[in-house]
Parts: sequence; C-alpha cells; structure tokens
Amino acid sequence: MSDRSKFEAAWVAIKQELLDHFNGEGMPKDAAEWYERSLDYNVLGGKLNRGMSVVDTVEILKGRALTSDEYMQAAVLGWSVEMLQAFFLVADDIMDSSVTRRGQPCWYRVPRVGHIAINDSFMLESAIYFLLKKHFRPEGYYVDLLELFHETTYQTEMGQLIDQLTAPEDKVNLSTFSLNRHSLIVIYKTAYYSFYLPVALAMHMCHVPTTYTIDSTNVQPYESAKSILIPLGEYFQIQDDFLDFSGTPEQIGKVGTDILDNKCSWCINTALELASPEQRTVLDENYGRKDATAEGRVKAVFEEVGLRQRYRVYEEGIYEELVRMIEAIPETQQDGTLKREVFRSFLNKVYKREK
Amino acid sequence: MSDRSKFEAAWVAIKQELLDHFNGEGMPKDAAEWYERSLDYNVLGGKLNRGMSVVDTVEILKGRALTSDEYMQAAVLGWSVEMLQAFFLVADDIMDSSVTRRGQPCWYRVPRVGHIAINDSFMLESAIYFLLKKHFRPEGYYVDLLELFHETTYQTEMGQLIDQLTAPEDKVNLSTFSLNRHSLIVIYKTAYYSFYLPVALAMHMCHVPTTYTIDSTNVQPYESAKSILIPLGEYFQIQDDFLDFSGTPEQIGKVGTDILDNKCSWCINTALELASPEQRTVLDENYGRKDATAEGRVKAVFEEVGLRQRYRVYEEGIYEELVRMIEAIPETQQDGTLKREVFRSFLNKVYKREK
Repeated sequence: MSDRSKFEAAWVAIKQELLDHFNGEGMPKDAAEWYERSLDYNVLGGKLNRGMSVVDTVEILKGRALTSDEYMQAAVLGWSVEMLQAFFLVADDIMDSSVTRRGQPCWYRVPRVGHIAINDSFMLESAIYFLLKKHFRPEGYYVDLLELFHETTYQTEMGQLIDQLTAPEDKVNLSTFSLNRHSLIVIYKTAYYSFYLPVALAMHMCHVPTTYTIDSTNVQPYESAKSILIPLGEYFQIQDDFLDFSGTPEQIGKVGTDILDNKCSWCINTALELASPEQRTVLDENYGRKDATAEGRVKAVFEEVGLRQRYRVYEEGIYEELVRMIEAIPETQQDGTLKREVFRSFLNKVYKREK
Repeated sequence: MSDRSKFEAAWVAIKQELLDHFNGEGMPKDAAEWYERSLDYNVLGGKLNRGMSVVDTVEILKGRALTSDEYMQAAVLGWSVEMLQAFFLVADDIMDSSVTRRGQPCWYRVPRVGHIAINDSFMLESAIYFLLKKHFRPEGYYVDLLELFHETTYQTEMGQLIDQLTAPEDKVNLSTFSLNRHSLIVIYKTAYYSFYLPVALAMHMCHVPTTYTIDSTNVQPYESAKSILIPLGEYFQIQDDFLDFSGTPEQIGKVGTDILDNKCSWCINTALELASPEQRTVLDENYGRKDATAEGRVKAVFEEVGLRQRYRVYEEGIYEELVRMIEAIPETQQDGTLKREVFRSFLNKVYKREK
C-alpha cells in the first residue's frame, strides 16, 4: 500500500469517529448526511502534502517504522492539519469569489450550499479539537497541541486579513503592494500552517522538549525548526507565485490567474521594485483586469524587468541559506531530539519543484 | 460604578491586550485599525447578559466580593463568552442575509467590509484562546476551559447547521418543522453557549470538581448544572419566540419578524401541532412570505389555536419544574461546591421577562 493510500485509509476511520459522535449528539439524519458530504468534499481532493508530512516527520524523528497505534495518532495530527486547511479554503473561496478549487466547484457554489458553507467551515475546525481530545487527552503534550493549533489558526487569520486589505478582490491599487507586505502575508497566511505546524506537531508527539543541550550547546528545537521552516514556507509560496506566471498548464495542472485576480504575488511585487516609470504605468493600468490583453501587457513587463533571472537568483540564494541553516543544527541519535533529515526532506521536495 | 460599567471597563484592558499582541506580531497599522474596529463593532452593543453572568456566578460561588485579580479573570471569561457570541452572530448574519443587528447595520453590510467579515468572525474566536492562555495558563483547570469552549462551539455549530437545513432562508417548507426539531435547534444553537457555558466556566474558576459527596450523596455538579441550564435556556428561547409574536415594539425594542423570515420558532411549531387541515393550509400558504397581509393571516391562526394560553401553561409548567430541580441540588457552605442561588438568579431574570 502506498503512503498515500495508507493515509487515506486513516481518513475513513477518522471521518467515522466524527460521524459517530455527531449522531451520538442526537443530530438528525439529514444533518449527518450533510456533514459527511462537507467533510469528504472539502477535506479530500488535495495533494495531502501537509498532512502526510506529519507522519513522515514522526517517522524521521523516531528513526523507525511506526506501530499501528503510533501511525493512527500521527495520522490524526496529519488529517487535523488537512481539516484546518479545509476550514481556511472553504472560507477563502467565499471571500475571493472563487469558482473552482481542486478541479471542482468551490463548496459554496454547490447547489443548496451557498452561505451554509461558512458554518460548514467552522465545523471543520471544531472537528480538530474533538479528534485531539479523543486521541491525545492523556498525553502530557496535549495542551501543547491545542495551543499550537490555536496560535497557528490565529496567525493564518492575521495573514488572510492583511491579504484582503492589501489586495481587495474588487479594487486594484498597486500602491498598497510591496515585497515586505508580500513577505508578511505569505509567512502568516501560508508558512506557519503549511510548514511549521506539521513539524511542530510531530515534534510534540515525539516528546521533543522545548530546550535541551548537546555537547554543552543549548538547543531550542521549536525555535530552530521555525527559523528554517518559515523561510522555507516563504520560498515555497514564492515558487508557487512564480510557477503561476511561468508554468505551462500541462506542467502545473492549472491555468495561472494571479495577474487577472489582482493577487499580491511575488511576481508583481518584484516587478514593481524594478519597473521604470513607463513600465509602472503599464502595470497600474493592466494588473487585476479580467482581460487577456491586459494580462499579456503585464506579462511583457515581467519579462522586460528580467523576472525569470531574478527568480533563479532568489532560488539559489535561499536554497544555499537553508542548507547552511540545516547543517548548523546540533544533532545526536538520542530520542526526543531534532534531526536534520526532517528539514532536508522538506527542502528536497520544494527545491526546483516544477508543479 | 454599575456592574455593567465595571464589566465594560475590563473590555478596554482586554481589547488592548489583543491589539498589543497583534502589533507585536508585526502586523501593519491598517490591519490593526481594522481589527480594533471589528472588535468594538461586533463585541459591544449587546445586553452583555451572558458575559456578566460569568462574573455574577463566580461571586455567588465564592460567596464574597472578588479581589481585583479575581474580577479580571472572571471578566476575561465573560468577555470570551461575548466574543464567542460575536463570532457566531457575524457569521449568522451573513448566512441569514440579515440587515441590522443591535440597531446598526450588520458588520458584513458596512462599506468595505463585505465578505472580509468571515475572517473577522474567525479572529473573534481566535482571540478567546489567546486570552485564555494569557490569563489561565498556570491554572490546573486551564485545559478544562479550553475543552469547554471547543465543545460548546461545536455544539452551537451543530445547532446552526440543523437550523439552516430546517428553515433555509430562501425556501419555505413547513413539513421539515416540528417541536422536536425546534427543541434540538434551540438547545444546540442557543442554550449551551448562553446558559451552560457561562456557569461551567465560573465553576471551573471556583475549582468546583467533577464530582463530590454531600451527606453521602454523590453530586456531579456539571451534570446537575447542565440538567437545569439546558431546559432553562430552552425556556428562554421559547419566551423569545413568543415575545417576537406577542410583544409590542415599545415593549421588546424591535419589530418581530420571525413569521416574515420563515423562522423555525416555537410559535409556528406549536401552531402546526394544533392546526386543523384548513388552518394548516393557511400556514403553508402564508408563512415566511415577505408580506404583511400573509403575516396577518398567520397571526390570526396563532390566535385561533390558542397560542397565548399554550404559552402561559408552558411557562408555569417549566417554571415549577425548574424550581423543583434547583431545590433538589444538595448544598453545603463549603468552597468549591454548587449553590442553588446560581440557578435561582438565572431563573428570576428569565421568568415572566417582558423584554
């Protein structure tokens, strides 16, 4: 069985726990059917990278295959990350008036759903805490898991707020954009929940303490992990932004729409830093218009300012810096300590990714 | 200083803690201003009954005035209940396409807000867990507070789901209505967070354990509290539904719109149980139409089936039952035990309430 199939099999059991509890509360059949449909529609269908990375990280930290109990616990954490993402995506799609998600209509666009999707998104979040209680209540690190989800959720919401204020769906104004603003949005809206959260959850499950000493060097493993995973998450999103511009539909599996959608992307922010006054005027007049000719003019400016070369330079620089930071982590074979391989494994999945 | 002024003064300090943390995360000025406006617009302006009832309950359980530290902790719990309610109300107003709330436009209808209100509602929820960590992290009952908020939130969302499925905003179909369905909606959507949550929070703050013994009688104080507060909350909502029909605008401070809005109210559900086939036809053809003549026809049926008398009988019956349950609670003067006065105080605020 592939890693993915095994992880998906755990979903079947987890979903059943949620439905059994829901029915146990005396909820009627129509509501249970609705909830099950919402769970499957919104939690499944993605790449599952974030969720599976929890399981992978637990395996690396333990340095051995997991028992079936350990696998189930790790999978609950992984699926909780996927449910957290589903909570955000269902709501983001309404806020952005998006049409499709993962190749199907956005949940709020499904007949009869509409704005009930808002409450459905809430229930995806609440399900996380039900599962954490069920699977982790007796663990000493239970409260750490709760706080990690609370804090990451709040950070992601802060990121979504500044994204909405910087790039409102219906009003183009590039004067609010900047690379600094982009960095803040990306770190808060994406990097914390996609990169730091899965690893920190796995670390708690492996009883990694807040601080320990190796060869008289004091290690703060969660701070170390954050200091690597946040720039790595930023790199991932910058790459995503760049692929939206440069990738072919065959390569990335979708048509890039960031320019049409007035997205506060790395590409436009970098172009704004490099543009001449004339090129700036072209960007102001054509960015975020739902019109292929305008999009073409923006893309022409992106080429003129040398965006592709800029990206290559950025990617090599950040890659080298991340490698350097990873190699600087003090390491022993002792249980409950951080392993460089955790970060290498993430970095190798991201570096020179083409889809 | 009145109880209300004192409670409102605590909000100023609590809001500042939230903004200091937000700014400490490096969020830009426009976002901090937005967040502050959302907090004040959505958390203030209500009756504050739920929030203040936490403080009142702590005082009753301790049997003395609170120190200023105790007051601040109780106020944080109280304002957390108010923020939880704000989280629900901001979202419910979008789901119900409501126009006004507490005498002002619903938040999502304020210019420039729109669907950003969804994320603002999320941030109201996240703020709760930030405050609980800041004020309760060292307490032995910290995890109990977290779980109580998680579970109550989930229950309220379940109630909102069944309400949305039973009475969709845009489609009238009385065949999905029933008094049983009404009871389930009211208990899950309103009673848990409005009645059980404030008291259970206060009990945890006063170190009331899960179980204790008085004169060799085993007491499960949280179960006792729930068994009284859930029917009390149901009574409160039934009263609210009845006042929407029977109260004058001078009396209840608003014009009742439940009939026009297709609400799954106690009134329509009771009328459906009592209606003749002819009256049922009138209800089917006139309920939930945005039209004063249709509303008048429904009200005439409500009078014909004797709804007012039914309500009086219900109110006397539930009042006596609640009094009986309250008097049955074993009581001592010992610290950390339940007091009948907690429930008497709630019941007296609800009984024969006219607004």
